[in-house]
Amino acid sequence: MTRQKTVKDYIRTIVDFPHEGILFRDVTTLFADPRGFRMAVDQLLAPYAGARIDKVAGLEARGFILGGAVAHQLSTGFVPIRKKGKLPGAVISEAYQLEYGEAVVEVHDDALQPGEKVLLVDDLLATGGTAEAGIKLIERLGGVVVGCAFVIDLPDLGGRKRLEALGMEVHALCAFEGL
Amino acid sequence: MTRQKTVKDYIRTIVDFPHEGILFRDVTTLFADPRGFRMAVDQLLAPYAGARIDKVAGLEARGFILGGAVAHQLSTGFVPIRKKGKLPGAVISEAYQLEYGEAVVEVHDDALQPGEKVLLVDDLLATGGTAEAGIKLIERLGGVVVGCAFVIDLPDLGGRKRLEALGMEVHALCAFEGL
Repeated sequence: MTRQKTVKDYIRTIVDFPHEGILFRDVTTLFADPRGFRMAVDQLLAPYAGARIDKVAGLEARGFILGGAVAHQLSTGFVPIRKKGKLPGAVISEAYQLEYGEAVVEVHDDALQPGEKVLLVDDLLATGGTAEAGIKLIERLGGVVVGCAFVIDLPDLGGRKRLEALGMEVHALCAFEGL
Repeated sequence: MTRQKTVKDYIRTIVDFPHEGILFRDVTTLFADPRGFRMAVDQLLAPYAGARIDKVAGLEARGFILGGAVAHQLSTGFVPIRKKGKLPGAVISEAYQLEYGEAVVEVHDDALQPGEKVLLVDDLLATGGTAEAGIKLIERLGGVVVGCAFVIDLPDLGGRKRLEALGMEVHALCAFEGL
């Protein structure tokens, strides 16, 4: 009897992307597979069965693919958290540190109603910098983050601890050790 | 009796984005609404009921939100068509003209099997340059584009005619006249 493929089995590793020494965990092979993609959405939502979720927020750009599917599964609306300058309406912004320099993410200032329950989704939890900025944006709009759900956790980069220190519930479908 | 809101009713117009004189049609207000988002996905797929679709391809970045939801609804896999340098694996590329200069989109070279039926989705059909590049990428991989589905058509920019001249079936949920 052969074992069923898990979400992790569908993820491929690309060596030296985006630069030498990095093992890049590529979810496009997961998303491209009908069974893999559906399994990822189902497992991402499993901890929230019965919970009230008003909106799904996704981080640009891979979090859009996943977030669109998750919002559709839940029959909720979707809120994009985008890189600076991409959203056309009035926005609020949060900066976060990168290895070299900083980056900024934004959300429309009318994207949430105060008290709305929000599930934040992305493909990968690394240092947690982008996710933390996303959480701050949601909370500044009066939203309540009910969970942060990722396909992949890279525990050695400390993102889970960082988000848990903010009081967040972190859910990841699989982990890869090392960078 | 009040009329039901249509997809078009959920789209807001932002004046002077990304630069002066442009009326930007903003789908984030459509995607943020549970009923609007589901209606958009349902209507996008209506013409393909019963058709074989193996993969949904979405154009970065708003096409990812829509494409993720559409692929989930169909229980197919999703293939991202991305801007240059974003995909980690081996890619093929297509350049297309912008108002000033050119841009490049890419797809993983193993994203499709020859003969697979692909639905291309994006939020907006303007000049059709990005969509045409996406179609070429799909066809170079041996995929067959069964349709190009958009939320918005801007008919004055000629994208529909351009794609139809390639033999494509174009489906849009609403149109805005003018730029």
